[in-house]
Amino acid sequence: MAKVLTSRSENYSQWYQDLVIKAGLAENSAVRGSMVIKPYGYAIWEKMQAELDRMFKETGHENAYFPLFIPKSFFSKEASHVKGFAKECAVVTHYRLKTDEVNGGVMVDPDAKLEEELIVRPTSETIIWSTFKNWIQSYRDLPLLINQWANVVRWEMRTRLFLRTAEFLWQEGHTAHATKQEAIDETEQMINVYADFAENFMAMPVIKGVKTENERFAGALETYTIEAMMQDGKALQSGTSHFLGQNFAKAFDVKFATKEGNEEYVWATSWGVSTRLVGALIMAHSDDNGLVLPPKLAPYQVVIIPIYRKEDQLAAISEKVNEVIAKLKAKGISVKYDNRDNRKPGWKFAEYELKGVPVRLAIGPRDLENGTVEVARRDTLEKNTQPIEGVEDYIESLLEEIQTNIYTKAFNFRKENTTKVDTYQDFKTTVKKGGFVLAHWDGTSESEDRIKSDTKATIRCLPLEYEEEEGLCVYSGKPSKRRVLFALSY
Amino acid sequence: MAKVLTSRSENYSQWYQDLVIKAGLAENSAVRGSMVIKPYGYAIWEKMQAELDRMFKETGHENAYFPLFIPKSFFSKEASHVKGFAKECAVVTHYRLKTDEVNGGVMVDPDAKLEEELIVRPTSETIIWSTFKNWIQSYRDLPLLINQWANVVRWEMRTRLFLRTAEFLWQEGHTAHATKQEAIDETEQMINVYADFAENFMAMPVIKGVKTENERFAGALETYTIEAMMQDGKALQSGTSHFLGQNFAKAFDVKFATKEGNEEYVWATSWGVSTRLVGALIMAHSDDNGLVLPPKLAPYQVVIIPIYRKEDQLAAISEKVNEVIAKLKAKGISVKYDNRDNRKPGWKFAEYELKGVPVRLAIGPRDLENGTVEVARRDTLEKNTQPIEGVEDYIESLLEEIQTNIYTKAFNFRKENTTKVDTYQDFKTTVKKGGFVLAHWDGTSESEDRIKSDTKATIRCLPLEYEEEEGLCVYSGKPSKRRVLFALSY
Repeated sequence: MAKVLTSRSENYSQWYQDLVIKAGLAENSAVRGSMVIKPYGYAIWEKMQAELDRMFKETGHENAYFPLFIPKSFFSKEASHVKGFAKECAVVTHYRLKTDEVNGGVMVDPDAKLEEELIVRPTSETIIWSTFKNWIQSYRDLPLLINQWANVVRWEMRTRLFLRTAEFLWQEGHTAHATKQEAIDETEQMINVYADFAENFMAMPVIKGVKTENERFAGALETYTIEAMMQDGKALQSGTSHFLGQNFAKAFDVKFATKEGNEEYVWATSWGVSTRLVGALIMAHSDDNGLVLPPKLAPYQVVIIPIYRKEDQLAAISEKVNEVIAKLKAKGISVKYDNRDNRKPGWKFAEYELKGVPVRLAIGPRDLENGTVEVARRDTLEKNTQPIEGVEDYIESLLEEIQTNIYTKAFNFRKENTTKVDTYQDFKTTVKKGGFVLAHWDGTSESEDRIKSDTKATIRCLPLEYEEEEGLCVYSGKPSKRRVLFALSY
Repeated sequence: MAKVLTSRSENYSQWYQDLVIKAGLAENSAVRGSMVIKPYGYAIWEKMQAELDRMFKETGHENAYFPLFIPKSFFSKEASHVKGFAKECAVVTHYRLKTDEVNGGVMVDPDAKLEEELIVRPTSETIIWSTFKNWIQSYRDLPLLINQWANVVRWEMRTRLFLRTAEFLWQEGHTAHATKQEAIDETEQMINVYADFAENFMAMPVIKGVKTENERFAGALETYTIEAMMQDGKALQSGTSHFLGQNFAKAFDVKFATKEGNEEYVWATSWGVSTRLVGALIMAHSDDNGLVLPPKLAPYQVVIIPIYRKEDQLAAISEKVNEVIAKLKAKGISVKYDNRDNRKPGWKFAEYELKGVPVRLAIGPRDLENGTVEVARRDTLEKNTQPIEGVEDYIESLLEEIQTNIYTKAFNFRKENTTKVDTYQDFKTTVKKGGFVLAHWDGTSESEDRIKSDTKATIRCLPLEYEEEEGLCVYSGKPSKRRVLFALSY
């Protein structure tokens, strides 16, 4: 049948766009830069949320909810924060519409102007720290470990479904601690939680590291990141965790009484991942036939398609299928039985391939006679015939195998596309091809900026795992003690 | 110990406010009319969400996410809808801030004015129906059963934590159907789901009914409601389900090809409940000592408090407690063990009473010797001593008993405070005392309006369950065939 997607080799970016639309994950809305997340895309996000929320709670965090709107003046309170976020905000200036007597329709009521404008949150540090001031008096109130699931708005000029949208969904953790070390430990714990989630649920290997000063979150002393490689060799920043020092505590005057009776400023962290992860998931694994979803995050892990001509055949097949479904569900495996009669099996095969359902079962009258079922796996597109008796055990281990295989494939791809380079000439040609480049850097923003303007490559991070190694900065030739990770990025 | 709450009899409204704050459920924020939902309040909302989400999915609905912002012009497309919502909207007019060179801080950048203003959604019918237009072509695409969990903003002038806030969290279901009857069936199904949730999870009896024309949702042909009685006798509208006819399909030109090849407009419903339910839950059951939570929605159902003087006593108690916890968890009962050493048992008793934990266990060295544990239930404040062996079975049935008892208490309270009246004089005195009043009404908006301006009472609904009964309208004396439900309301 005709391919519905542009191939990756032809136009990677168009392939991604096609896939998001055709697989029913999301689409552009009538509001510039805002997307509609369609049910299938939202179901993936819900799966992600459920796992992450469990991990946050297991590490002692509680959920809460803070206002969407932030008074404009709050943004001025932390100097570097306002620089980072003030340029890209949706601003509420009025609180009423009225009938437009001249042009018809409705117009903004000029009498309903706010005294102080409200900013639609691009991130919530300021409103949360203004609240924490009332929650924290003594060391007994610490640590305060809060997470929020919310929508945020950043006025992006160039948007892309899931990867960069004006409004997106995310979680933002905000914690307060009595000591610097505790806050640093929390920052590191959360980047480890994100890496664990990326690798063990998304089947997406990531490099953990810290950002350079240039790339740090506005208001942070240190930003930890996880960086993943997409199939075009570009890096995608997939989650960040910030050590905020005492910046926000000082900006919002949040002090606590220590056990010894002194008064000190509180130490802070914040950390977040967003619906961008859905984009990462798509780009990390999918192929020219459609999505490839890791079983642990697939909205349903198995789809069953009956092959029949006559109604009585369908009845016999359905009876058998219902037994299989019951056994799969008992194992906690999610399954969809598509017995719609207004679509042909071939159409359904293509549909679920496009949607990346990890395992497809097909069963017809011949299978019933033989006690068999056809099992197809999405990741390798391999098919084989299995005895229907005990097929639930086969599927259970197949799902594990698929989860591992997807990870391994992505891991090997990254390995093959990660290069150490030692001259600027090599650097430039290697970066252009895509992939990760490990190179020496002299530690200055100046060299970093020049490399970026020459090649568009940025320092994705200083990996946490590295070997000490004497070398010379690829740009300046100055001495360096370690390699850092460069790449083109989303 | 000193009472921390104003009593209900002294000042019901102040009691509510005290309770929400002192139990750590929510507080006012720096943004006028917007609340902060604190972890304990949010945990109740999460419990509600989980049950409702399950019920929506069991009835075939899928979640999706639509933009926060709605172009201003969309509001003019459905005439009655704009009248209902245009007066209370937050309006985004600009998309950038810049440094204020004169006054310091930041200011709205006048160069970054939007061509068309964006409204922060007060409800999403318009943006969703503009999207549905692309999703619906044929009868095969119907029914379309979508739900969204989201924040919405209505610029309320007088706000009250949970009950009426400028921003609140809710779910909004939006469905599209091929026939009028299917849409009506859906509308009724969802009000039944809400009633089921209110009665079986919130332990809050509700009256199902339809709204009068005056009280209908802006854009609906029929609004179904569930109305609950609070302890001050006022009604609280707790959930609504709207039959929208073809109004939005016509406004956004959403047609479908029927099986027979004709083109017809689609039929619509929408339905929602919000964080207002947390307010309802509080007001329906709590007492002068604090919250009383139904076990099915309590963030934790059991709290265990060790009574000890020395560290080795705590160690022995904790060993026993851990066994109990394991047995409770195996039964799916959530439990918190508060072994903090910086708070006294008496403080903890008061704290969990205030927080409405359904069952409290206390265990000391004497209990260890005797193999017993003290069990206190929050709803009746009764205490008794139970053998620790098998206490998990006792607690399991106690939780069921508490759930039932809370419901029964609220049910009886409503019964005692529901009165049939037949004269306007009786009507006025009865309504003033609080409670539900069943009276005849002539079916006109005029009488309804006059009654409202005389007494502040509104027709909460025309109950779905009623007896046909000839009578005379309490206001006009005109003939009527049934009684309707009047009350003062939130």
